[in-house]
Amino acid sequence: MDKTYAVIMAGGVGSRFWPASKAKTPKQLLDLTGSGKTMIAATVARLAPHIPPERVIVVTGKITQKAVQDALPDVPKENILAEPMGRNTAPCIGWAALHVKKKCADGVMAVMPSDHLVADKAGFIEAAKAAVAAAENGSLVTFGIMPSGPETGFGYIETGDEVSSGVKQALRFVEKPNLEKAKAYVAAGNFVWNSGMFFFTAQKILDEIGAQMPDLKAGLDKIDAALQQGKEPDVLDDVFPTLPSESIDYGIMENAKGILCVPVDFGWSDLGSWAAAFDLSPKDENRNAVSADAVLVDARDCLVRAPKEKLVALVGVEDLIVVDTGDALLICKKDQDQHVKKVVETLKSQGRKNLL
Amino acid sequence: MDKTYAVIMAGGVGSRFWPASKAKTPKQLLDLTGSGKTMIAATVARLAPHIPPERVIVVTGKITQKAVQDALPDVPKENILAEPMGRNTAPCIGWAALHVKKKCADGVMAVMPSDHLVADKAGFIEAAKAAVAAAENGSLVTFGIMPSGPETGFGYIETGDEVSSGVKQALRFVEKPNLEKAKAYVAAGNFVWNSGMFFFTAQKILDEIGAQMPDLKAGLDKIDAALQQGKEPDVLDDVFPTLPSESIDYGIMENAKGILCVPVDFGWSDLGSWAAAFDLSPKDENRNAVSADAVLVDARDCLVRAPKEKLVALVGVEDLIVVDTGDALLICKKDQDQHVKKVVETLKSQGRKNLL
Repeated sequence: MDKTYAVIMAGGVGSRFWPASKAKTPKQLLDLTGSGKTMIAATVARLAPHIPPERVIVVTGKITQKAVQDALPDVPKENILAEPMGRNTAPCIGWAALHVKKKCADGVMAVMPSDHLVADKAGFIEAAKAAVAAAENGSLVTFGIMPSGPETGFGYIETGDEVSSGVKQALRFVEKPNLEKAKAYVAAGNFVWNSGMFFFTAQKILDEIGAQMPDLKAGLDKIDAALQQGKEPDVLDDVFPTLPSESIDYGIMENAKGILCVPVDFGWSDLGSWAAAFDLSPKDENRNAVSADAVLVDARDCLVRAPKEKLVALVGVEDLIVVDTGDALLICKKDQDQHVKKVVETLKSQGRKNLL
Repeated sequence: MDKTYAVIMAGGVGSRFWPASKAKTPKQLLDLTGSGKTMIAATVARLAPHIPPERVIVVTGKITQKAVQDALPDVPKENILAEPMGRNTAPCIGWAALHVKKKCADGVMAVMPSDHLVADKAGFIEAAKAAVAAAENGSLVTFGIMPSGPETGFGYIETGDEVSSGVKQALRFVEKPNLEKAKAYVAAGNFVWNSGMFFFTAQKILDEIGAQMPDLKAGLDKIDAALQQGKEPDVLDDVFPTLPSESIDYGIMENAKGILCVPVDFGWSDLGSWAAAFDLSPKDENRNAVSADAVLVDARDCLVRAPKEKLVALVGVEDLIVVDTGDALLICKKDQDQHVKKVVETLKSQGRKNLL
């Protein structure tokens, strides 16, 4: 994987992890499972034996650029790209492709989110090698997660014939299904979850953008011209807002031909909620996951996070998410954690940006 | 009641209200029911039409003396007595009696806790007038609360014949009973709860102390001699620790003769727990008692207290006590609030005085 560049997308806020996740401390900058590493640092560490930090490119926002630099001290600062504004994944990936191509004309991009978990790191690398090999041959390649159930929160990919060891045809991308369809997909056996992890050469994705998203290509060309002259900062703030805000899935993948898919089963999680963070955190003998100075009296199955200078006492409670960030405190029944976003919406409607 | 002095006992910590109640902010200095007044200020206000602040004497500890002064700006500072150490109620009342007698040789003491609630303030005053009249005649008089059920957390008083309108003989004091006995007392109909509110002349209680607790009397005599010469501070720290640590109930009341009891039914509460504070607090439409900047999503029957600069979000929870004090956070199932003391005991065993 000597010509492979990791492109780590770190633009999201992750409001489902409010109040820990805020604009300045988004999900990828948190350690949500008590691992001792922020999620983005864990993502880089997972790659490090095969893709060293100097071949890691991170795309984030201006508000988080400094925090990302601090979280990834081994990644060269010039590799941490700050978008003037979020424009979804197609412009993000297209922009990163310009930088990869500048560093290496036939460079391969391994595109992945900054805030997902992988349990089987060796399995991940093995799958990545297969995907990179296919991408080097000029294909668009995606990881497809073997579904553990009929989830309705992910898009699905229908796979076809195997084209080489561990690599199949991707017949079509389908958006998040209802439960009935999800059950049918899982029953069919040849559908996998769309993980948001992609592999292709920088040239290939730029060609696809040119073919399918000419407006985006035109904007990227302006940035590329400035980049070649070392003058990217001069045009970025003007050009970026003009790029179409579109996902790579909808803008490219759903209509591209000849996509390949590597079905994978390496213990992946997108860590979509506090309950998921609880599930993946180490627990005490009463199944409490505690990252705090705490006194627990008859407390069970609780997640507790608080600043180290705060004492948290739980008495006679169970199945609670308790997150204290100093300025805010969330107490949520674990099976109601999808409603944390209602708190965030309320605060937005009240204009309380300091809490978001 | 021109010669009646209120003696307000404000020595307790009230660890059942941890973390709001701490050594420096004991229960009586809190507003636990959203009334807008600290409990001790409410106690003084309840008396004010009949016993003005200059006839209010408060006995507290050195650590809380300044805070009590601040809570009671109308009470003369010299009326706020600070015990060098807590020695239970008999020394407290005996010491206060010296001060009352010095102000008024035939002064009557209306002794009461600083941290109880009274709903029917007019009924309280009416009962106090009857008790003061009986005390002026040289009796030890106590309020007995008409029991609302077979509580095992209070001592009981068995009453006998009526000796004047609203005043009965107190036949015997019995300590906190088991449930079986409590049920028998309530069924008998002539048992009342010992409220800890007493009425007697200063001379009468000093005479009783002399008869029943000669060691205490000897110590009080030393303090009195210094007090008469304006030199009380010179001896207090030496003498106070030598006084026997004993309750007025056990030391005097249980063996005194001719005690009278005024049975009362004025909506009294000793506010013994967070659940009791919840019951007596104003509620929103989902029966939440909230003293905090809060966003509530599907939350019911919760008590919430937090510093004004903190946002508290509750999602999908019910029957919780949530108390944030900046340095500590308690989350307790409402029907488990008797176990808050276990948290306090744990912190004590850890030597964490700053949290107690």
